[in-house]
Amino acid sequence: MGHGGNIYEIEEKYKIPRSELLDYSANINPLGVPLELKQHIIENTNALINYPDPDYRELKAAIAEFYQLGIEDIILGNGAAEVIHAFIRTLKPKRALLLQPSFSEYERALELLGAEVLEVYLKEEAEFQVDVVELMQKAEKGVDLIVLCNPNNPTGRLIAGPQLKRLLDYCEKRNIYLMVDEAFMDFADAENSRTLLQDYRSYQRLFVVRAFTKFFGIPGLRLGFGATVNKQLLQQMKKSSLPWNINTFAAGFGMMLKKDNAYIKKTYGWLRQERELFVRKLKQINGLKVFNPDGNFILIKLATDEINTTVLKERMLRHKILIRECKNFKGLDERFFRIAIKDRSTNRYFIEALRDSLEAPI
Amino acid sequence: MGHGGNIYEIEEKYKIPRSELLDYSANINPLGVPLELKQHIIENTNALINYPDPDYRELKAAIAEFYQLGIEDIILGNGAAEVIHAFIRTLKPKRALLLQPSFSEYERALELLGAEVLEVYLKEEAEFQVDVVELMQKAEKGVDLIVLCNPNNPTGRLIAGPQLKRLLDYCEKRNIYLMVDEAFMDFADAENSRTLLQDYRSYQRLFVVRAFTKFFGIPGLRLGFGATVNKQLLQQMKKSSLPWNINTFAAGFGMMLKKDNAYIKKTYGWLRQERELFVRKLKQINGLKVFNPDGNFILIKLATDEINTTVLKERMLRHKILIRECKNFKGLDERFFRIAIKDRSTNRYFIEALRDSLEAPI
Repeated sequence: MGHGGNIYEIEEKYKIPRSELLDYSANINPLGVPLELKQHIIENTNALINYPDPDYRELKAAIAEFYQLGIEDIILGNGAAEVIHAFIRTLKPKRALLLQPSFSEYERALELLGAEVLEVYLKEEAEFQVDVVELMQKAEKGVDLIVLCNPNNPTGRLIAGPQLKRLLDYCEKRNIYLMVDEAFMDFADAENSRTLLQDYRSYQRLFVVRAFTKFFGIPGLRLGFGATVNKQLLQQMKKSSLPWNINTFAAGFGMMLKKDNAYIKKTYGWLRQERELFVRKLKQINGLKVFNPDGNFILIKLATDEINTTVLKERMLRHKILIRECKNFKGLDERFFRIAIKDRSTNRYFIEALRDSLEAPI
Repeated sequence: MGHGGNIYEIEEKYKIPRSELLDYSANINPLGVPLELKQHIIENTNALINYPDPDYRELKAAIAEFYQLGIEDIILGNGAAEVIHAFIRTLKPKRALLLQPSFSEYERALELLGAEVLEVYLKEEAEFQVDVVELMQKAEKGVDLIVLCNPNNPTGRLIAGPQLKRLLDYCEKRNIYLMVDEAFMDFADAENSRTLLQDYRSYQRLFVVRAFTKFFGIPGLRLGFGATVNKQLLQQMKKSSLPWNINTFAAGFGMMLKKDNAYIKKTYGWLRQERELFVRKLKQINGLKVFNPDGNFILIKLATDEINTTVLKERMLRHKILIRECKNFKGLDERFFRIAIKDRSTNRYFIEALRDSLEAPI
């Protein structure tokens, strides 16, 4: 499949117990599974005896309240992956436009449908910033769908607000659907936050995707959602959705969605400090090009020819650290790798291990 | 959607707290969520921080060992519903043959694909037993797929062993796929057990579906699987399956799959006693026709014209009991309802409530 976070493969191949591995390859909140949620699960194991509410009314109401959405505008998924695949399967685009490098499931979902995929490559010399004019030019060839990831995985940057607005208006005018995957948006600075959940109501062609996975440290729980005011689209998606696709514990996740939740505040506090500090420390290391992140992960390029990321990965594993090689992202190669941002002491250990790995004799 | 077990709707409409409701509409093991599984979940809430193993090797190995299957013959699903939909979406049958009445998701999955659906109706006068000759005659019109549920939901009967064998050979010879949903097979008497997991290896066209939902009392966990030796089919299904479709707690379910598991033994003991006793008590009530069950649920017909199941359902709710009306099953009407088998004292209370409801003045 080629995603990050495959600690099971590492366990088998390198004999490093997964409990001892520092997984920098998956971009998960290092504060861990929220205590309140663990408590909730522990107290509700008996609830597994019932089928979940097929309409998931409590969960949808909590999401609607938290993000200020209409309940009827929400569709839930067994992870954001299910939402992405369901949207694309329902839309059945003939031709879609993607950015590269980006999360690979968009392309996979499109190819499963036999859709033609056009691509615009983000440029390293532009710091992998999205150029909306280039996107629109390419779209002139005739596309049904444009897919964005914002901030983009693995490059880490947010699209500039005015650029995004321009693209939204363009898509609306040309009847092109726009799917924006905001899986990492919660990590973007509150001030800079450019979530389209704020003004999704203005765009009939817009479909916003969200995941709780990363921000709340729960990739194992499986919960994501999509939001749109396009009633016809949502109805079609719901018509073909699986019964009880959200498990009981994920269905109870609404209890976490409170603005004054201590976990959320603590996460903002952690990220405000550690993102800047970690980037600064990384930039002090010779032989690296570090791209500024808007999310909770960092794209890095080896500026030396002496080693590639495959060698680096092996060396980092000696320190029980797993990094995400990026050579299977289109437009990147064996010089690029991606790492998560963790807590200060772990990041400090990471820096030491990285220095050591870069200096090790070949 | 029209499945059983919607205790949330009842809570809202009838103001009966779901914790007080006796849900006879969902066919779930009354022994409840296994203690060992609850313990496992409570001890592993921190594991949610990791993505599950994308290959789910531990879980597949446990299933393979328990049912004596090849690991490579298994495909997992977020509930059996996902397995059923994935199989049908991959097979893309042009024309399929179903039994009616039966579980409604088969027809739904086929209609979503635009497949033509042929039907054979089970006959009340034959105690809703499957007539394989009739099935084969209908199949002569040219079908790609035959779907069976064994034991069948909601009628409750197993297909006779020799009949099933005849159908398997027929399908194999005619290149017709046969999907057999064994969601309730674990409840069939061990001696009579006719699971096709025992000889699935002999049939390239056979796809067997299983759920852990009912037997292990965990519809909220979401876990089912399919098994086939048809490598090409499985590869195609896996190619389009969602990443991480099984959540962490379901991925850890393998720990329950041991032959000497006390929960399993206790379940057999309970069912051996209560099925016969409950059926006998039900048959003593005037105005009912009770169909003999092979699983853990019972189909009943009101033999009186004085009330229909809608009235009966309302009356039973006064006793905080929920029954499953069967009028939205094809071939059944407002005289048929389905109930689960629970523990002795609850079943006794049910009998009293049913007597009371049948005798109540209109």
